[in-house]
Amino acid sequence: MLRGRDIISVNELSRQDFERIFDAADEILEAPGKWSSVLRGKIMATAFFEPSTRTRLSFHTAMLRLGGEVVDLGEVEKSSMAKGENLSDTIRMLDSYSDVIVMRHRLEGAAKLAAEIAEKPVINAGDGSRNHPTQAMIDLYAIRRFHGRIDGLTIGVLGDLKYGRATNSFIAALAKFRVERIYLISPPQLRVRDDTRELLSEAGIEFKEVERLEDVIGELDVLYASRIQKERFPDPSEYELVRGSYVITAETLKGARSSLTILHPLPRVDEISFEVDSTPHAKYFEQAALGVPVRMALLKLILVG
Amino acid sequence: MLRGRDIISVNELSRQDFERIFDAADEILEAPGKWSSVLRGKIMATAFFEPSTRTRLSFHTAMLRLGGEVVDLGEVEKSSMAKGENLSDTIRMLDSYSDVIVMRHRLEGAAKLAAEIAEKPVINAGDGSRNHPTQAMIDLYAIRRFHGRIDGLTIGVLGDLKYGRATNSFIAALAKFRVERIYLISPPQLRVRDDTRELLSEAGIEFKEVERLEDVIGELDVLYASRIQKERFPDPSEYELVRGSYVITAETLKGARSSLTILHPLPRVDEISFEVDSTPHAKYFEQAALGVPVRMALLKLILVG
Amino acid sequence: MLRGRDIISVNELSRQDFERIFDAADEILEAPGKWSSVLRGKIMATAFFEPSTRTRLSFHTAMLRLGGEVVDLGEVEKSSMAKGENLSDTIRMLDSYSDVIVMRHRLEGAAKLAAEIAEKPVINAGDGSRNHPTQAMIDLYAIRRFHGRIDGLTIGVLGDLKYGRATNSFIAALAKFRVERIYLISPPQLRVRDDTRELLSEAGIEFKEVERLEDVIGELDVLYASRIQKERFPDPSEYELVRGSYVITAETLKGARSSLTILHPLPRVDEISFEVDSTPHAKYFEQAALGVPVRMALLKLILVG
Repeated sequence: MLRGRDIISVNELSRQDFERIFDAADEILEAPGKWSSVLRGKIMATAFFEPSTRTRLSFHTAMLRLGGEVVDLGEVEKSSMAKGENLSDTIRMLDSYSDVIVMRHRLEGAAKLAAEIAEKPVINAGDGSRNHPTQAMIDLYAIRRFHGRIDGLTIGVLGDLKYGRATNSFIAALAKFRVERIYLISPPQLRVRDDTRELLSEAGIEFKEVERLEDVIGELDVLYASRIQKERFPDPSEYELVRGSYVITAETLKGARSSLTILHPLPRVDEISFEVDSTPHAKYFEQAALGVPVRMALLKLILVG
Repeated sequence: MLRGRDIISVNELSRQDFERIFDAADEILEAPGKWSSVLRGKIMATAFFEPSTRTRLSFHTAMLRLGGEVVDLGEVEKSSMAKGENLSDTIRMLDSYSDVIVMRHRLEGAAKLAAEIAEKPVINAGDGSRNHPTQAMIDLYAIRRFHGRIDGLTIGVLGDLKYGRATNSFIAALAKFRVERIYLISPPQLRVRDDTRELLSEAGIEFKEVERLEDVIGELDVLYASRIQKERFPDPSEYELVRGSYVITAETLKGARSSLTILHPLPRVDEISFEVDSTPHAKYFEQAALGVPVRMALLKLILVG
Repeated sequence: MLRGRDIISVNELSRQDFERIFDAADEILEAPGKWSSVLRGKIMATAFFEPSTRTRLSFHTAMLRLGGEVVDLGEVEKSSMAKGENLSDTIRMLDSYSDVIVMRHRLEGAAKLAAEIAEKPVINAGDGSRNHPTQAMIDLYAIRRFHGRIDGLTIGVLGDLKYGRATNSFIAALAKFRVERIYLISPPQLRVRDDTRELLSEAGIEFKEVERLEDVIGELDVLYASRIQKERFPDPSEYELVRGSYVITAETLKGARSSLTILHPLPRVDEISFEVDSTPHAKYFEQAALGVPVRMALLKLILVG
């Protein structure tokens, strides 16, 4: 049951939760017209304490496509928080106006704190460097759409595995399924943290940490690429060292399986070369479009079951 | 009759106007579902020339909960006014697009000017240092909800009584009712202005200006606290002098009546200590939540009677 | 047929296209209530890479008045583009969320590029210094409303004829009709470009370039004034030279026909003196109000035919 629940972290979600959301998203894609009044009279409040275009817009679109409405906190620099209000009081305000709160925050734990204060469900649209549960839903749903299944696949996760909240959430979500193997592909300074290794081991998932994509590209069913986010680096010079060293080009893909799909949470900067866009491997735009039905499914299940 | 009227200042509203709004808000709280299509097809334009989170969001929420829609002018720094357009032309634009205009402005008289230009009703969401009529509606409605009446109560108003538009509007609204007594609690440099004293005297309201909350706390039914807004002070050093000297703590409340309710227009910074939140006196979050039904009632009465 | 089409430039529109939009706008003004659910379930995405208050708000209003919904990209400085995303990827995102994209951009050709990428129709809400097709629709529709016709009229276009996207689009649109004569009134450095002269010649329109409004004011049926936009000048000192030299005052209008109408795309700064507002010539506020029915007509015709 997802009705009334907070969605803070992948860790609190079961495989069954994911599959219930995926099944609902399937139904939405089959007959979108049937869902256009499901949330009539409901209001979603969005609070992006850290800006996000794709996540914010796809949540807005999802709510509107279900017949609901949206109020947006707007820019934090212009908000009551700029007058010195604390996060708790701001959340209490949103809680009293809306039926569900969607929030993003720079700091880890902010969404959890909000969920403790709010009576209405809180959906974490990304906080800190680990949690972005709705992105993970979209990523796994994309795999299920493109490959027909998640179990049994060999999946490469490329990029910033230490600071990236999308990659961390993706890996944690994969651990709920019976994938064949995970390749963790990153420069040494951006390797996964110990708790991720433990998570995978406990789940009994075979994984291997490698530095070079070309060593494993031929084995992959799915390659999950991600942006190396400058803002996550404590030291900018550390960023310059790795920047561009993991660019995917047509050349890179020569050894790939014909059925390989490339995913990316977007936006990308230069980590996937534009020439890749026109190959059959490029699935990141389709994946991004799935953000709307997945978020529609989630909002519907949380608000009316 | 409120239909078609501009709401610029508390002074233009009668006790009967207030009570009509309160009665409508009561009806909304009793059966919110009945109101969800009342403003179908109507558009509210919001123009916050001075940012405001709570007021803007609760107006948005109110309009959406009535089935209406909202267009927002957005940031003034990015608007046509940044290109040099005057306020009159901007208001004419909003007037031609929408059915009602809600505006906030730094300058006293801006809302009145807008109302003279616009054919559609204009609601002042705060201008200058005196007028914030919808906040006063919420404040008095909160008292009626929590105490069952306004007449006969002893009310303390604490903080910035000179520059505060919320406190000024609250006091002016109280003068429409038969309260027992008002204590005006402030440091000497933030005392009410002469016109407020005259207003209260003419209304036959007993009031007393005091400097220390502890001297009167035991007599109060309602304590209305407010933020001492730095931006209202011509001189920053004047602000530093009074900052923090009127903080309400659990200690402060030791001599209070058990039925005392504390109100605050929010956001608060440090003028109410967090430990107070969990006392039965703390009613400011519930008060803030009443912003939606009160603004729903007002919009409904103005737009469709 | 306008259904499914991109609206990038006036050049791609026929006289018949304009007239179809005008006829639909007439119908909307006659019976606005009949249109309130025409776009139920449709979403318009707006992307103002360059800020615009009037155009953005009137598009929002138009979509809402047709029963549709709006998602807005928001400030570019806070968007995924600030993270380094290219325009194409941003457009692909909007394309996958919405049913129609309305965009403004500083650079000429941006809307055309977007239209090539997006599957959904793209409406150019202004790009570069030439294209603002929906403004031209409003301007010509205003003439038709105020004069009953466009053919046979003598029209003066005043101001920045070189860099002004509104004036350029207006002139290009006039060339689709059989106007009597066009006076192009500007300082020497802001004269129309050669391609505009060619366009008018090829259309067989009589036109004359003049420097002084007073020389032709008595002949005009319509005077289209425009803001001389500082931001369009490569050299600020060039701006200071012409600033204010084309201000329309009551004095200017002494020699005008009694039936002269003055139009302006707004916002104005000081190019039309406020004393003119109260003359019967001043039609710019009524013209601006027509932005909503014209954009309603266009959205309706593009989305559902």
